[in-house]
Amino acid sequence: MISAALNGNIIVTATAEAIATVITDLRALLGERLSTGAAVRGHHGKDLSHHEAALPDAVAFPGTTEEVAAIVRICAAHRVPVIAYGTGTSLEGHINAIEGGICIDLGGLNRILKVNTADLDVTVEAGVTRMDLNAHIRDSGLFFPIDPGANASLGGMCATRASGTNAVRYGTMRENVLALTVVLADGRIIRTARRARKSAAGYDLTRLFVGSEGTLGIITEATLRLYGIPEAMSSAVVGFDSLEGAVNTVITTIQSGIPIARIELLNSAMIAAINSYSKLSYAERPTLFLEFHGSPAGVAEQAENFGAIAQDCGGGDFAWTTKTEDRTRLWQARHDVAYAAMNIRPGADMITTDVCVPISRLADCILETEADFKAEGFPIPIAGHVGDGNFHTILLYDHKDPDETKRAFALNDRMVMRALAMEGTCTGEHGIGQGKRDFLIAEHGEAVSVMRAIKTALDPDMIMNPGKILKP
Amino acid sequence: MISAALNGNIIVTATAEAIATVITDLRALLGERLSTGAAVRGHHGKDLSHHEAALPDAVAFPGTTEEVAAIVRICAAHRVPVIAYGTGTSLEGHINAIEGGICIDLGGLNRILKVNTADLDVTVEAGVTRMDLNAHIRDSGLFFPIDPGANASLGGMCATRASGTNAVRYGTMRENVLALTVVLADGRIIRTARRARKSAAGYDLTRLFVGSEGTLGIITEATLRLYGIPEAMSSAVVGFDSLEGAVNTVITTIQSGIPIARIELLNSAMIAAINSYSKLSYAERPTLFLEFHGSPAGVAEQAENFGAIAQDCGGGDFAWTTKTEDRTRLWQARHDVAYAAMNIRPGADMITTDVCVPISRLADCILETEADFKAEGFPIPIAGHVGDGNFHTILLYDHKDPDETKRAFALNDRMVMRALAMEGTCTGEHGIGQGKRDFLIAEHGEAVSVMRAIKTALDPDMIMNPGKILKP
Repeated sequence: MISAALNGNIIVTATAEAIATVITDLRALLGERLSTGAAVRGHHGKDLSHHEAALPDAVAFPGTTEEVAAIVRICAAHRVPVIAYGTGTSLEGHINAIEGGICIDLGGLNRILKVNTADLDVTVEAGVTRMDLNAHIRDSGLFFPIDPGANASLGGMCATRASGTNAVRYGTMRENVLALTVVLADGRIIRTARRARKSAAGYDLTRLFVGSEGTLGIITEATLRLYGIPEAMSSAVVGFDSLEGAVNTVITTIQSGIPIARIELLNSAMIAAINSYSKLSYAERPTLFLEFHGSPAGVAEQAENFGAIAQDCGGGDFAWTTKTEDRTRLWQARHDVAYAAMNIRPGADMITTDVCVPISRLADCILETEADFKAEGFPIPIAGHVGDGNFHTILLYDHKDPDETKRAFALNDRMVMRALAMEGTCTGEHGIGQGKRDFLIAEHGEAVSVMRAIKTALDPDMIMNPGKILKP
Repeated sequence: MISAALNGNIIVTATAEAIATVITDLRALLGERLSTGAAVRGHHGKDLSHHEAALPDAVAFPGTTEEVAAIVRICAAHRVPVIAYGTGTSLEGHINAIEGGICIDLGGLNRILKVNTADLDVTVEAGVTRMDLNAHIRDSGLFFPIDPGANASLGGMCATRASGTNAVRYGTMRENVLALTVVLADGRIIRTARRARKSAAGYDLTRLFVGSEGTLGIITEATLRLYGIPEAMSSAVVGFDSLEGAVNTVITTIQSGIPIARIELLNSAMIAAINSYSKLSYAERPTLFLEFHGSPAGVAEQAENFGAIAQDCGGGDFAWTTKTEDRTRLWQARHDVAYAAMNIRPGADMITTDVCVPISRLADCILETEADFKAEGFPIPIAGHVGDGNFHTILLYDHKDPDETKRAFALNDRMVMRALAMEGTCTGEHGIGQGKRDFLIAEHGEAVSVMRAIKTALDPDMIMNPGKILKP
């Protein structure tokens, strides 16, 4: 057996002998906590994306940072790839073992190590999920705001620089990680920072590892910022005459300094999809879902000021909700957009697109994308984190139809290149993984050589999640 | 002539011949815009800190990014050090040419390239100062909040990860830089990101260069976040019975989600110093200077809620001010703390200390520091960005008294080690420069080897601001 999932331009870094030796050594270390079974490997060899499965040769289940380091040292000694695994909810093939090797499932690192209420921070192991964390700290009056939709592991959210619906107010993982514990490619363990809120002490290793997708090291612990649960929260839904009106409302809202907590845009096609899927009855037009956090008076004032702006921009009547169960229902519908969109064409394959542009270009970018999809005959349900200029289309196609598949991928390519032409990015929050490595070069040009120099310096044998972010 | 400012553990990277050749080549490129005059070199060979002057061999005055790149290429060809210079207001010897070489004064890169009001961002050249930027954009209703006190260049503020009094609300340079143009050690020019608010596209090069102090490349342009000028601003001063009371007020305020814009702590000794220097008459006790930004009603509510918290923690009467000229006078007094402290002992030398701890440890850290200074017989004026856990003492000593000098530096050493023992950092905002390289290792341990690997990968000949952050 040699490494799985070979293809033309992938370098095989590990021989069958090396992998067999590593498995023997790992078995001695982990016993039953190493699996080579097909089902376990299959479960760990594919994420939620359209990328083809690529199975690891074995899956390790460590319980501590030190065990992760020991596993990496064994793999490093034989130049066998190491792929970190959180919950498998990535969207660009991040966890697929495209050169084979050992998957490290971090689910066993699931301890919440220290909640510092006075400092508004918490230190967790990488396998803790965001919902587990929020359940654990609820009684302290604190919460962790970053919400990518899936109940992802916090280590995985660090590794992919996740964000989501709250980012307009609270930032992304980039802004909310204070420090990381990382196992390097040779098994050394580092801590990237301490618990101080800010520091000017040397290179910002925390931000370097946030978003590095397991290619520079394996994140095993994270210290995260927490926030007080707002005294009042109020959500609303409002439809607009035009997409430009909805986007202009957001631009003016942010310029006015209204600290909106969530502001999400759904186009007419997506509203139709969620009406059908979630049994709702919103008017089928460009619609904003919004949420305000603050004191009762503050939330009321924000809502009033926002309402005046929306009215000037062609906004219709607001459907307000402040009761927790109603708010939950509203945001559940928003979180279910992927399922709602899939329901447009049951059984279809799906590309979850993800571009982000300066907000002044957002309406143009969405309208041109809609026109392009329409011309090609694809449905075009769109949902976007409009405060950040980030939006997704759910691109439904049938992989058994080669022509349609080709046209679907070409649409995604054009969507990315359109965003780049508008000074945007090829990925707002899903990351590069396997799927956007060429776009990374289109976006960053010469700067990719700096990324490659860093990769080579920190992982000279290219064993850390090889083939992700950078092509070999 | 060989490189200036040799000492035991500094490696000389450039021979006299190399420097002479570089100066000849630069003269051909820049003509009169290259200076080897003693006065110009002297002006560029010392920052505002206690570190001894170390003069560059010549100072170049480029006008464009391309000229900076051409200068770096010439220096790189002969392995001659290159030191970027903004306004010379750094506080740890950042710009001192401790191995000689060519200083690049970026003051000629002073264009504000593009203000995008809808996107709340601006692209500037590195030599633009923060006050120039704010004067330029005032009529647009926008402002750039980061305020380190000095009217520093924005390139220098990027390079040192500057922050200051507004960081508790608006973040530091880390959170407010969207993209950078950087000249690398071999003269290549890269752009680290585009204008999208967020991106998950590859390694976060922006954050890597923010805070890299000119050791990885030279920042020549920056795209920065802007904010709407708040509709209402209100400032206040309030004294406390105890330092713990003042700090607990801040902790509770932040936990409550009150979006305070500035919250600064001055201890009794600093209040006495500013009373004397700025002709004020505050009661000599631990005192908070604060500012609220928002709508008129929002600011009033914040102030009321804050007042209730302060009263519970032993706060006295508030001195409120909303008129612009009064607010300016109040914050001018705060900004002048260094001059006020120097006025305690005119003619003394000064170490501007800078540590940052988790806020739960701040009162302990300050009280232990005060006791240590008192035991050694030094005045102890303290000012702190208390919302971030960051504080400074102005350590006054006479460098002509060897014993006093030794005791002053030992006090600074103990202050840093105390902060590290409390999970803090050796520098909240001033950076490592020359002065804190050993503390960097004490703080980060093995992680410093990762910083060194990155430095070696991006600057293999060690010509970019050598001897800063990392020892050779």
